[in-house]
Amino acid sequence: MEYFSRQISDMIGELSRLPGIGSKSAQRIAFHILHSPKDEVKRLSDTIWSARENVRFCKECYTLTDSELCPICGNPKRNHRQIMVVEDSRDLAAYEKTQKYEGVYHVLHGAISPMQGIGPADIRLKELMLRLQHDVDEVIIATNSSLEGETTAMYIAKLLKPTGILTTRIASGVPVGGDLEYIDEMTLLRALEGRTEL
Amino acid sequence: MEYFSRQISDMIGELSRLPGIGSKSAQRIAFHILHSPKDEVKRLSDTIWSARENVRFCKECYTLTDSELCPICGNPKRNHRQIMVVEDSRDLAAYEKTQKYEGVYHVLHGAISPMQGIGPADIRLKELMLRLQHDVDEVIIATNSSLEGETTAMYIAKLLKPTGILTTRIASGVPVGGDLEYIDEMTLLRALEGRTEL
Repeated sequence: MEYFSRQISDMIGELSRLPGIGSKSAQRIAFHILHSPKDEVKRLSDTIWSARENVRFCKECYTLTDSELCPICGNPKRNHRQIMVVEDSRDLAAYEKTQKYEGVYHVLHGAISPMQGIGPADIRLKELMLRLQHDVDEVIIATNSSLEGETTAMYIAKLLKPTGILTTRIASGVPVGGDLEYIDEMTLLRALEGRTEL
Repeated sequence: MEYFSRQISDMIGELSRLPGIGSKSAQRIAFHILHSPKDEVKRLSDTIWSARENVRFCKECYTLTDSELCPICGNPKRNHRQIMVVEDSRDLAAYEKTQKYEGVYHVLHGAISPMQGIGPADIRLKELMLRLQHDVDEVIIATNSSLEGETTAMYIAKLLKPTGILTTRIASGVPVGGDLEYIDEMTLLRALEGRTEL
């Protein structure tokens, strides 16, 4: 890109390293930034850095946050006796958007994957077990419906068995609005196995 | 997004203001950044700010650059007597990618648009006329093939008439690899009008 001056090329290069941003988008974003008011760009640049600089794990649920407790764990109105186990902070966000779940979370930061060499000790399972020493009514396992997510769910279920705590798994099945014709066999079988009486 | 802590929400908010980035992508990019090594994030943040802070117009062609002359105007190997007029710096980049054009550019930073209240005085036309006081063999008008781009092309052509400088317009027609069946009538007509003898 020697047709752009060095600093502009550098910015395009850095932007194109972000996930989902190809070279065309990076260029488009870069020129948008170059044409934006300085104070807006300063804010963008500062926000990126300060969020990264101050990020840490919530001491309760291990989601990414910038304070000791995340907004959910710090909220006394949430049901702290119901814990939903998710793979990462974005899964937490997905359930929060439903605006119906009132419990708290536990973020594993990964899933067990023998293929990728990720074992139980590599995700926040020890931390989950420590939390269960306090009063907990239910652990809802909401890991992804992938091979790794299912393996992790099975592992946690086995781990929790001796504690006697109610352990549940979110349902697998046909997505709402889904057209059966286009849904894979595994999902169709899961939906059949998980059928409920009407 | 009160389920994310304030700094994380702020970063997602700022990222989602960038062109082509919706709230889902912004969240994905934000978590990618939060998981990236600090030095990489510092570089991203610094590059964005320093490019914006130092950006200015090339004193010859008015493209965005960080030095007095852009790399193209500063290159003695380019043909400085052939000037391609484009609407913005990204159009310049598009032609540079062909690696065949050896002249220089003139960036208008916009196009005449009576609908949007953009007149000839709002784009870098005066600066183009000043450049033509030096020896110039050809002005190639490469504004977009939109209503605004065509209006601008016509206006420039009229403006340059008295100078006697050769003024050309890039061809309009069927894109290479284009299937006639899917091409709009206006383009088909232009391709017909612009037909060349074989």
